[in-house]
Amino acid sequence: MIKIGIIGAGRIAQVHARSVSAHSNATLSVVSDPVEQAASALARANGARWTLSADDLIADPEVDAVIICSPTPFHAEQVLACAKAGKPVLCEKPIAMDMDTVDQLEKDLEGLNPTVMMGFNRRFDPSFAKIHSLANEGAAGKIEQVTIISRDPAAPPVEYIATSGGIFKDMTIHDFDTARFFLGDIKTVVAIGQNLDPALKDTGDFDGAVITLTNAEGATATITNSRHCASGYDQRLEVFGDRATLNADNIRPTTVRISNGTVTDGQDPYLDFFLARYEAAYSVELDEFLSAIDEGRKPSPSIEDGRKALELAEAAEKSARTGSIVTL
Amino acid sequence: MIKIGIIGAGRIAQVHARSVSAHSNATLSVVSDPVEQAASALARANGARWTLSADDLIADPEVDAVIICSPTPFHAEQVLACAKAGKPVLCEKPIAMDMDTVDQLEKDLEGLNPTVMMGFNRRFDPSFAKIHSLANEGAAGKIEQVTIISRDPAAPPVEYIATSGGIFKDMTIHDFDTARFFLGDIKTVVAIGQNLDPALKDTGDFDGAVITLTNAEGATATITNSRHCASGYDQRLEVFGDRATLNADNIRPTTVRISNGTVTDGQDPYLDFFLARYEAAYSVELDEFLSAIDEGRKPSPSIEDGRKALELAEAAEKSARTGSIVTL
Amino acid sequence: MIKIGIIGAGRIAQVHARSVSAHSNATLSVVSDPVEQAASALARANGARWTLSADDLIADPEVDAVIICSPTPFHAEQVLACAKAGKPVLCEKPIAMDMDTVDQLEKDLEGLNPTVMMGFNRRFDPSFAKIHSLANEGAAGKIEQVTIISRDPAAPPVEYIATSGGIFKDMTIHDFDTARFFLGDIKTVVAIGQNLDPALKDTGDFDGAVITLTNAEGATATITNSRHCASGYDQRLEVFGDRATLNADNIRPTTVRISNGTVTDGQDPYLDFFLARYEAAYSVELDEFLSAIDEGRKPSPSIEDGRKALELAEAAEKSARTGSIVTL
Amino acid sequence: MIKIGIIGAGRIAQVHARSVSAHSNATLSVVSDPVEQAASALARANGARWTLSADDLIADPEVDAVIICSPTPFHAEQVLACAKAGKPVLCEKPIAMDMDTVDQLEKDLEGLNPTVMMGFNRRFDPSFAKIHSLANEGAAGKIEQVTIISRDPAAPPVEYIATSGGIFKDMTIHDFDTARFFLGDIKTVVAIGQNLDPALKDTGDFDGAVITLTNAEGATATITNSRHCASGYDQRLEVFGDRATLNADNIRPTTVRISNGTVTDGQDPYLDFFLARYEAAYSVELDEFLSAIDEGRKPSPSIEDGRKALELAEAAEKSARTGSIVTL
Repeated sequence: MIKIGIIGAGRIAQVHARSVSAHSNATLSVVSDPVEQAASALARANGARWTLSADDLIADPEVDAVIICSPTPFHAEQVLACAKAGKPVLCEKPIAMDMDTVDQLEKDLEGLNPTVMMGFNRRFDPSFAKIHSLANEGAAGKIEQVTIISRDPAAPPVEYIATSGGIFKDMTIHDFDTARFFLGDIKTVVAIGQNLDPALKDTGDFDGAVITLTNAEGATATITNSRHCASGYDQRLEVFGDRATLNADNIRPTTVRISNGTVTDGQDPYLDFFLARYEAAYSVELDEFLSAIDEGRKPSPSIEDGRKALELAEAAEKSARTGSIVTL
Repeated sequence: MIKIGIIGAGRIAQVHARSVSAHSNATLSVVSDPVEQAASALARANGARWTLSADDLIADPEVDAVIICSPTPFHAEQVLACAKAGKPVLCEKPIAMDMDTVDQLEKDLEGLNPTVMMGFNRRFDPSFAKIHSLANEGAAGKIEQVTIISRDPAAPPVEYIATSGGIFKDMTIHDFDTARFFLGDIKTVVAIGQNLDPALKDTGDFDGAVITLTNAEGATATITNSRHCASGYDQRLEVFGDRATLNADNIRPTTVRISNGTVTDGQDPYLDFFLARYEAAYSVELDEFLSAIDEGRKPSPSIEDGRKALELAEAAEKSARTGSIVTL
Repeated sequence: MIKIGIIGAGRIAQVHARSVSAHSNATLSVVSDPVEQAASALARANGARWTLSADDLIADPEVDAVIICSPTPFHAEQVLACAKAGKPVLCEKPIAMDMDTVDQLEKDLEGLNPTVMMGFNRRFDPSFAKIHSLANEGAAGKIEQVTIISRDPAAPPVEYIATSGGIFKDMTIHDFDTARFFLGDIKTVVAIGQNLDPALKDTGDFDGAVITLTNAEGATATITNSRHCASGYDQRLEVFGDRATLNADNIRPTTVRISNGTVTDGQDPYLDFFLARYEAAYSVELDEFLSAIDEGRKPSPSIEDGRKALELAEAAEKSARTGSIVTL
Repeated sequence: MIKIGIIGAGRIAQVHARSVSAHSNATLSVVSDPVEQAASALARANGARWTLSADDLIADPEVDAVIICSPTPFHAEQVLACAKAGKPVLCEKPIAMDMDTVDQLEKDLEGLNPTVMMGFNRRFDPSFAKIHSLANEGAAGKIEQVTIISRDPAAPPVEYIATSGGIFKDMTIHDFDTARFFLGDIKTVVAIGQNLDPALKDTGDFDGAVITLTNAEGATATITNSRHCASGYDQRLEVFGDRATLNADNIRPTTVRISNGTVTDGQDPYLDFFLARYEAAYSVELDEFLSAIDEGRKPSPSIEDGRKALELAEAAEKSARTGSIVTL
């Protein structure tokens, strides 16, 4: 039984707490959050203790491993603290707000032989993972074009966007990792940013984007993002290879279709946003983290994957701001 | 170039006229209809002559082969007249209103070696035909259960029903032939008739039905009929064998899907009724008729197929009226 | 926290144990099974105690409510024992092997005001339940024809069939309840039984069946069953009303589609058999049972629903054996 | 009856000849091709005359309107000749191999008030046209992102590519017009070219591409092209607006689905290549051309649409060759 501490008590922490409680090889030990009400509520709901201090949680002898769900600016220091304490850590994305912080973190981690896993949950989505394993078995042949559609159901509050790091670090970061999951390291990035939503006009951030990546072999990945989508949380993937095309579609709560005088085979709205849509993915992700700990191996995706996704986010921001293709 | 005469100038005659005009190996020569306006309109639209008399048409030296689109009570005598004139004939379904007439017709045809094809167009629908050829190649293994859904978009006028021969001879007749197409000769018939549409209550006819057939090997075919369907002309087929299930779906004019706040992947209404839905089938059916003539062989489905479909219609009527299973 | 005792430690008991453990308002207290190894294994996996005696379990003061997962011949006596002990009970289907036993049970229960829920899990399947609620809201208009396809992936061992009560009580029983869920009480039953699988020939049981039911208003339900299906556990529902058609499709583990030189948009096999396919349904079913207990109301489906499904199974058997339509 | 002359007797000329022959308001009068065998074969099959000279065809008094299906280098001069002869012309895409030729043509046409329609058949595809009309009615709200997938089933011969003008003028030209159909005039173009097919390596042309366009309002269109696709001719469209997403899928010859132990709901290959896939589109296109002539109005898409698609092709080539975003 691996005893888990969760730093943070927000929405994503709640998902991880639920996965931990449901896992046969893990138990939730401690929750930390500077807002005591949040920490205690989450802890009580899962039979755990709570603290206001992330440091105390990391130091807690009843904590074997840590899941970091704090705001991004705290990620690097908390990963480092876990590494110093010799505790495996699963860190939510992104690893940091800027590359300098990641550079410094990697320097600081040298010699500590840390066990760090990045929370890129898409890799563990059963449909995306199945495509990945089919592709690995050669079902698609040589991968040539990856097409990722990723749209949120509705824009977050303006205040959230101000501290989000921008669409590429906040939202596309997942899609960058998905692109790398299939194409490996990326050579060029070109991003077109959109400002279409009047409500977000003053944030200075983009509310939509189309990004095209290429790898050294000339394969492409195209990501289409929007902060809103009338039909819900739109999450699709297509992998086109020279032997087959593999597609993953949106997921619905039921298989019900309705046919009447207006529409035929009309279906349910998609599962509402990431907590429901990627519930299975979060659970498989946790399982990979716990299995790696048990087996004494490094989990994947690694901190290096986190760094490279962030690098792509920065390159995309630069491309969109300057109107140029960025070579890495 | 095979010169065709069409008896009748109604809706179904118009479909056949169009197919004939479009066919590279046929030309429409004469149209006959007791209503001159109808005959002349259809003839003119296709550059053909017209007459009020079916007999004249059959006797016309510029008519090599005949398509019978007259009301059912005339079918038997016109088939016989064609046979006597040595002209191949494609006769719309059903072959007759009752079995006695068919018995007499078959007796009258003895020794005439006639070329008669029954207009069971479903056999030539590209999707149903593909399932048939897949099944013949063994893709489904041994066929065990056939499921036919066949619903009209809206009930015909009450006056039509009065002379239609009833739902089993008028509507299910096609589905009986489809069942025989896959299962061969039928041993037992049980039919449940429905009286659900208040507008048709006084016709004495059923407006819906569920019929289950079995063949000698114990395979079943289930037919579900309705005179109305809110989502349109509902025509589906499933063939379940011990190695696979084969399905044919409804057909739509476009592939467009709409996803919004109310529905996801909602699609177009189905193609409206049989003229549009089975347009391709009518065309392939004509091609089989003309090819058989050219090759000097008997076309399929035969008059015997017409007889057996009618026999099933009568058995279904008896089953539904008496509440019993009928053995043939 | 409602303390649950589970009678039986087989496959279905394991599903219920898992649902109980995962439920926030229930805890698994005791498991009973005459095979100690089975009882102890299931109990240990869920932190519960075990006993060899169902009576002891029912009497246990740490058991607030009971789930009966024993073989069918024990259901009636165990339901009665729970009722006498004043403990709510969720009983797996069918309620008994014959109507006499149910008659006696209902007589014995008189005056005990028992809380008994029958384990007809299909009613709680999210897709079937959604169709039911759409239908209740009037989305389909007046229901006219229900079509149920229900095929198992592979036949059970010959030994199982010998004690199963036959296909109608063992397998179709669920579909009878689904038909009643939409149509209410049934007036007529006609069943065609099939003997197609050579391996089951000597069992004397049918391995496939087509059953048509009607209610007093003349609506129909058609059930197509098979003990085998090459493409897996085939579970579909169509509700046709005068305003719309509602369909529920098979469920797959992922949304992945593959398109290559052989096939386009080919999809995953269906979820394998009832434990996976109806996992959500079992969980919602338990929730209804616990909620009813909490709220002091009678849960649904009731023992009367169990009785009526069994009555339909017997009528179907009679219809298939005698070749007649049975009126209830 | 409009008398049509067709210049050219190749594959695309054959499609147009078939559409003309089938149209109730047109007749094929003359075919011209320098290869007499080709000209005579096509003419004979449609009961027309033939000539070796395009000029003779244009001058022929029995030719009311012309369809140009010659190689691209002849398009401009033949359009001009038709304009001088006062004959409406439907010209296959692209209008020319380079912008200079188009500039000269437009200058030469000044004062001639020509009736010129460009053969961008996608606009007339029933599914794409339906999306366009839905979008015009406001069903999608404000259009924000258009996604076009367009892949050929197999690469053309190396010799064809040498004279094709390159992938952007030869293949993407259709998709550029589709983008303009939905977004209007384009402001920026960025194209990533791919060289993935070893067989085409020495052609110097790209065999795949991802192109992103933006219009003045910031809406995007993303085009993904490949010269090959294992699953066939892959032609899809998605229009994402702030109120809905509209999709058009690939088209198959039947609706048949197969489910067995390997795959579920596997479907037919797509319709093979453009002649079959866009058969309906060519026919509707012709109808628009003939209707415009009848009604004395200018048909759409116009020569200006041809010019702008070509401009986008040149911008894409420049972008892909220089690794920069091109502003128009």
